Amino acid sequence: MKQSHLFTKTRHEVPKDEVAKNAQLLIRAGYINKEMSGVYSYLPLGLRVMNKVVNIIREEMNSIGGQEVHLAALQDRKLWEATGRWDDSVVDNWFKTKLKNGGDIGLGFTHEEPLTNLMKDHIRSFRDLPIAVYQFQTKFRNEERAKSGIMRAREFLMKDLYSFNVDEKSHQDFYEEAKKAYIRVFDRLGIGAQTYVTFAAGGSFSKYSHEFQTITDAGEDIIYVHKDKRLAVNRDVLNDEVLKDLRISRSDLEENKAVEVGNIFSLGAKFSDALGLNYKDAEGKLRPVIMGSYGIGPGRVMGTIAELWSDDKGLVWPESVSPFAIHLIALFDSEGKVKKVTDDLYEKLTKKSVEVLYDDREETAGTKFSDSDLIGISKRIVVSEKTLRENSVETKDRRTGKVEMVKSINDLLLE
Amino acid sequence: MKQSHLFTKTRHEVPKDEVAKNAQLLIRAGYINKEMSGVYSYLPLGLRVMNKVVNIIREEMNSIGGQEVHLAALQDRKLWEATGRWDDSVVDNWFKTKLKNGGDIGLGFTHEEPLTNLMKDHIRSFRDLPIAVYQFQTKFRNEERAKSGIMRAREFLMKDLYSFNVDEKSHQDFYEEAKKAYIRVFDRLGIGAQTYVTFAAGGSFSKYSHEFQTITDAGEDIIYVHKDKRLAVNRDVLNDEVLKDLRISRSDLEENKAVEVGNIFSLGAKFSDALGLNYKDAEGKLRPVIMGSYGIGPGRVMGTIAELWSDDKGLVWPESVSPFAIHLIALFDSEGKVKKVTDDLYEKLTKKSVEVLYDDREETAGTKFSDSDLIGISKRIVVSEKTLRENSVETKDRRTGKVEMVKSINDLLLE
Repeated sequence: MKQSHLFTKTRHEVPKDEVAKNAQLLIRAGYINKEMSGVYSYLPLGLRVMNKVVNIIREEMNSIGGQEVHLAALQDRKLWEATGRWDDSVVDNWFKTKLKNGGDIGLGFTHEEPLTNLMKDHIRSFRDLPIAVYQFQTKFRNEERAKSGIMRAREFLMKDLYSFNVDEKSHQDFYEEAKKAYIRVFDRLGIGAQTYVTFAAGGSFSKYSHEFQTITDAGEDIIYVHKDKRLAVNRDVLNDEVLKDLRISRSDLEENKAVEVGNIFSLGAKFSDALGLNYKDAEGKLRPVIMGSYGIGPGRVMGTIAELWSDDKGLVWPESVSPFAIHLIALFDSEGKVKKVTDDLYEKLTKKSVEVLYDDREETAGTKFSDSDLIGISKRIVVSEKTLRENSVETKDRRTGKVEMVKSINDLLLE
Repeated sequence: MKQSHLFTKTRHEVPKDEVAKNAQLLIRAGYINKEMSGVYSYLPLGLRVMNKVVNIIREEMNSIGGQEVHLAALQDRKLWEATGRWDDSVVDNWFKTKLKNGGDIGLGFTHEEPLTNLMKDHIRSFRDLPIAVYQFQTKFRNEERAKSGIMRAREFLMKDLYSFNVDEKSHQDFYEEAKKAYIRVFDRLGIGAQTYVTFAAGGSFSKYSHEFQTITDAGEDIIYVHKDKRLAVNRDVLNDEVLKDLRISRSDLEENKAVEVGNIFSLGAKFSDALGLNYKDAEGKLRPVIMGSYGIGPGRVMGTIAELWSDDKGLVWPESVSPFAIHLIALFDSEGKVKKVTDDLYEKLTKKSVEVLYDDREETAGTKFSDSDLIGISKRIVVSEKTLRENSVETKDRRTGKVEMVKSINDLLLE
């Protein structure tokens, strides 16, 4: 894409009420727009990053047999009454609205109820199980405070997967597969080293649930990290019993602020019982389906990456989620030689399906470089009179700052 | 994908309150689930069709320079008050809700207001124009009645593009490009022959707007079609003046029921003036940006295709939006020969990136064929003892019913 075509502009100012570093950087670089407190729109660069995050998650969910659906946001009150979650005293972050022809409906903050209900049409016998279903859907949560930028929004994209198994054992097997898939997701997203499988409160059906917590000062949670064992304990459940269960000692734990980028949860028969989701076993006996739920917030992940991978000049995207693979910057000369070479290079790279943002604007080198640092594409290529004198282009890695002169397009692509 | 893995089941019954043919077929075939009146979820097959519809529209919007974004659903009351569209007496299908910490917000039924406001950060000078921005976003409309299945839902996906130009002339140029892109979209979606550019009410800034109306008995609109000129007039504007403008005679027009699958609309400076979206012209003078809006509902299109392309056995997808390219059906023999050959064919086709739904279930031929007819994948391949005796497989076109015996996989792929 030519940058002269990209409609967004970088800017110095951010909305006065925006205190989160992730949102400040993303707004300044033109990735997102703040609509209201906790409500953000995604602009072309932001949508590109979001789509890459989503695709990595999708591939890993498919790899464990997940089938993708897209459930509705508008929620039937009756289903939520059946599980006791309609009342505002039970769920304190509902957005509710009214149908014109009568009746209250909710905006989904999660989807256990409608999906459990839907599966009654599709699960009859043990032969139909196991099943894993997931979606990327907008969730609405009426948060009292929303000061963490896109890390805690009132409207946000969520990947939520739900598993359906015949019994606790096969559920546990899938749960472990899902845990491994989550670890792969965060590794691929470039935040694996900072992300810990964290023991958290389990609810009625399992002693613990597992959160995926990424260490960052911008986090709203406190976790205790055991670095050697690559695990952590949420402050809420840190006690002697959990230390004993995990065979760790309090003195080996380090306190950190962290953000919950994912969580996985055993649900037992809670929803199946409430909504009547049963299957016939081999003996023809009706049994409740055993469920689990598995969430990742792609927007929250994107915000976390922005917090972790940025410097005083701007964003520093990992290659896997960089909005473009290459930021191609031309420093034009008066004779048009640089333009000719760069246009040609842009064509060739684009033809090879390399995603290139080509800064073809009539701007100073200073503006181009500072915009490029702010936007934070993982690799920069500069073409200038100076590089042409050496019959080369200059490449620069946004993260390491390493600069190289490269002679041919093949060398560029092979790197 | 192996059909034994697909969690959805075909079924005979549909919800009692579902009267629309499109939704009845799509529910029976396992494409969608009805959550409430006018609210549907998309299951794996339905999401695949939807994604194909979306991708065709996306390609054509990109081809006219559209830049994709994703705006928020939650809407700031202030912006809608500025244009006079907040009040329920002006817009009668708002869904509204309340923030926990005070204040009413709306659920977007369209996005002119937030996008116009957002563009103020990015449009400064005539050099920044033209711009075309689009999104695929869920819209919420509090319809009094919702009896047309996914053709008129209370929550539905919408592609909405907005154009920003320096003046009326450049706006008109883009408007014509968009019109052509729309025609390409409906052609590619397989409903081009039934779809007419239809003159409709224009509003304050242009005499007419243009609707894209597809002729079907399931439609809620009445249009008057001039077949030779490939145009139509909406009943709402049919009068002597429009006949004169279009140089057509009333007697050449044929009355039809139709569904509005798209519309394009000149907005003039209505939103720019109300929200202060201006640019500096070459003389440094501040002028309002001239806008247009361009909508297509992918869900409505999918419903329209289901209405047009179906028979008494089920759905009949056009190839371009068929959930899979091939429905591969194995009629197993007791010795496992058919299974071996079909497994192998499935592997080979999948490796060549052909999208195949492989019916590997232990079901009767009758069940497999009737499910296949109901699901309506454009091409069927049958492997059975009989076809193997001829060292062949049988292909069948779902639309024409044409059957052929094919000897090799290369012949299959070349077709």
